[in-house]
Amino acid sequence: MKRCGIGYAIVYIKELKTLIYLDHAASSWPKPPEVAKAVYDTLTNCGANPGRGSHQMAVQAGRICFEARKQIARLLHVRNPNDIAFTMNTTMALNLAILGVVEAGDHVICTQLEHNSVRRPLERLKREKNVTLTYVEADEKGMVHPSEVEKAIQPHTKLIVCNHSSNLLGSILPLEAIGEIAQKHGVLLLVDAAQTIGTIPIDVTALHIDMLAFPGHKGLLGPQGTGGLYIGPHVDLKPLLYGGTGSQSEAIDQPSVRPDRYESGTPNTPGLAGLAEGVKYVLKQGEETIHEMEWELTQMTIAELSALPQVEVLGPARGEPRTGIVSFNVKGADSSEIAYILDRHYEIAVRSGYHCTPLAHEAARTKEWGAVRASFGAFSTSHDAEQLIQAVKQLVKHY
Amino acid sequence: MKRCGIGYAIVYIKELKTLIYLDHAASSWPKPPEVAKAVYDTLTNCGANPGRGSHQMAVQAGRICFEARKQIARLLHVRNPNDIAFTMNTTMALNLAILGVVEAGDHVICTQLEHNSVRRPLERLKREKNVTLTYVEADEKGMVHPSEVEKAIQPHTKLIVCNHSSNLLGSILPLEAIGEIAQKHGVLLLVDAAQTIGTIPIDVTALHIDMLAFPGHKGLLGPQGTGGLYIGPHVDLKPLLYGGTGSQSEAIDQPSVRPDRYESGTPNTPGLAGLAEGVKYVLKQGEETIHEMEWELTQMTIAELSALPQVEVLGPARGEPRTGIVSFNVKGADSSEIAYILDRHYEIAVRSGYHCTPLAHEAARTKEWGAVRASFGAFSTSHDAEQLIQAVKQLVKHY
Repeated sequence: MKRCGIGYAIVYIKELKTLIYLDHAASSWPKPPEVAKAVYDTLTNCGANPGRGSHQMAVQAGRICFEARKQIARLLHVRNPNDIAFTMNTTMALNLAILGVVEAGDHVICTQLEHNSVRRPLERLKREKNVTLTYVEADEKGMVHPSEVEKAIQPHTKLIVCNHSSNLLGSILPLEAIGEIAQKHGVLLLVDAAQTIGTIPIDVTALHIDMLAFPGHKGLLGPQGTGGLYIGPHVDLKPLLYGGTGSQSEAIDQPSVRPDRYESGTPNTPGLAGLAEGVKYVLKQGEETIHEMEWELTQMTIAELSALPQVEVLGPARGEPRTGIVSFNVKGADSSEIAYILDRHYEIAVRSGYHCTPLAHEAARTKEWGAVRASFGAFSTSHDAEQLIQAVKQLVKHY
Repeated sequence: MKRCGIGYAIVYIKELKTLIYLDHAASSWPKPPEVAKAVYDTLTNCGANPGRGSHQMAVQAGRICFEARKQIARLLHVRNPNDIAFTMNTTMALNLAILGVVEAGDHVICTQLEHNSVRRPLERLKREKNVTLTYVEADEKGMVHPSEVEKAIQPHTKLIVCNHSSNLLGSILPLEAIGEIAQKHGVLLLVDAAQTIGTIPIDVTALHIDMLAFPGHKGLLGPQGTGGLYIGPHVDLKPLLYGGTGSQSEAIDQPSVRPDRYESGTPNTPGLAGLAEGVKYVLKQGEETIHEMEWELTQMTIAELSALPQVEVLGPARGEPRTGIVSFNVKGADSSEIAYILDRHYEIAVRSGYHCTPLAHEAARTKEWGAVRASFGAFSTSHDAEQLIQAVKQLVKHY
């Protein structure tokens, strides 16, 4: 057991040195050591509030936030870093985007694969603002066909929202085709990149993406408490939060200048310092390199698990594109039971149950048992995958 | 110069060892060393997503968040820690509270002293939802009279919003009397405790406070990126964000259970680890002790600055209650000019200009020049106050 902090700490963090962490789709861990160091240094040496004063330390805090903005812009091929607005997490970015563009009576298209962070704000608008929704169906492997998206377009369609990859199945959606459809029909495209940023290259301009929501703490390897939204320069978005921005202080309305318009209140400066380091690591390694490494691990895992008659592997077939996610079920067992055994007996951390995406479970026909989700990250090794495979091989003998 | 992080870092943090930091009202610095250590340890040893899995590390992350909730509840005399919802900052908490209870056609009372984080969401509701507002006037010293609040009550008044202390003037509002008025008339009371939490004891039940918004990074000495809202158990509040909570995953609407209902998306777990340490420090020292220490410094500063004919000190008179804020102007000088000289020539960090509270500047008659705001914190010393006094004494010779 290790004390968390010193002095008055009463929270203990158990040292999980032997833990095999396969829950990267929820949050990546470990991070590059620079991340925690940057957070620590900022907290220790640069505690001022960025944008709320012109003294040296406030200016330095502002520079830290801008550095993170610049790194994200570089990664997404965004010309103006001020088109990135930081939020607490992807959910907040998605709420900002959805509630900020969809108006009463609009029609919105999304897919059956969306996370609750897309579905719930949309369903809220349906209840409260007479917004109509079309959920484009996904097949059992988590694929959505662009022609189905195009068929769903109506004269008053305002927005298409889709994730870049299903957080349950790991399937990768055809963003390029969907982007072309959105552009052709003059409909805005919002992408939820929660499962791909940092591992699959994204060029928002080339892909005709108008808005893109992202987490800081998954593929970007930054701290929890960070995330953001790319807002295309042409997108007229209402703010989600109203309040102080340190600029145009005397105005009754939010300032029009970006990113201030969308960033009311004190930002997470130490978190953004860490995020900048995470993105730099990703840029240095290369998204493709990280993705390839995760790909090797998923393919190896799928090959071995698929060979077990008691196991059903979900999502794209072996050899087909996917992220670092391998979801599976052991026939006749609740997914929570399998995850519990993996955790307590084998010290392997996976997620189980329902993954905040009920309609994707319908598509994958896993409504009854949920699913065990193992997800690999930038620091996962073949040893991790082997341990998982061996553990599943052993435990299925009891089913 | 000190590198922020190692490895790929290109942001440099200038070592400001000699800096006298008097901008605690914007963000406190330094923090107790346990704060940065807890953040670092959490990032390094416990990176899982709380509430999104049942494996050991996810459970530990959940415990870290709950520990912060418990400490805040202890500080505010809240019986059930789940009545505390964490947000990114006070602004987000105020938006959650205001947008979550005020409905079309309601009347809301606030004061002339409110920050833009209260005024702008209210003015938005005025524009968009036909909400009517009364701004109760403050006198030049930043005092609001409870009888004026009571006079403003109308049959359809839904909410009174007031800060506990003006972020410009440091005056302390008569919360007890305002709470009694709110209770008597069946009107909800929302308190913005941005400038008092951690230095002035608050018992939400005794004060009849229905909701209280707070920052984690000011008087609580936690990291930026943290804050929250106390939501009385009887308050029927709509969520601000809709999305995944890890609970009731299959439901179309937000879960009804607290705090999940108000905390969609991944929380700032490392930030909350730091916040818990900050609150523990405050509880150990005692809010009164910290306040008394700050009080000595403000009184000493006011005495010396008031004696200078070129200086006008704002806010309550010497001897009257106030927080750690001393705002002032040098006659004939723009506040930004004075702050610039203090920063560059004397290495004293203060804030200047307009403090996101335009109507308070009207009350204080500082619309033209803004104000120089020096604000003391838990680690300020009499040396800091003396340096400020000596610097102002020197610089006023040029005016």
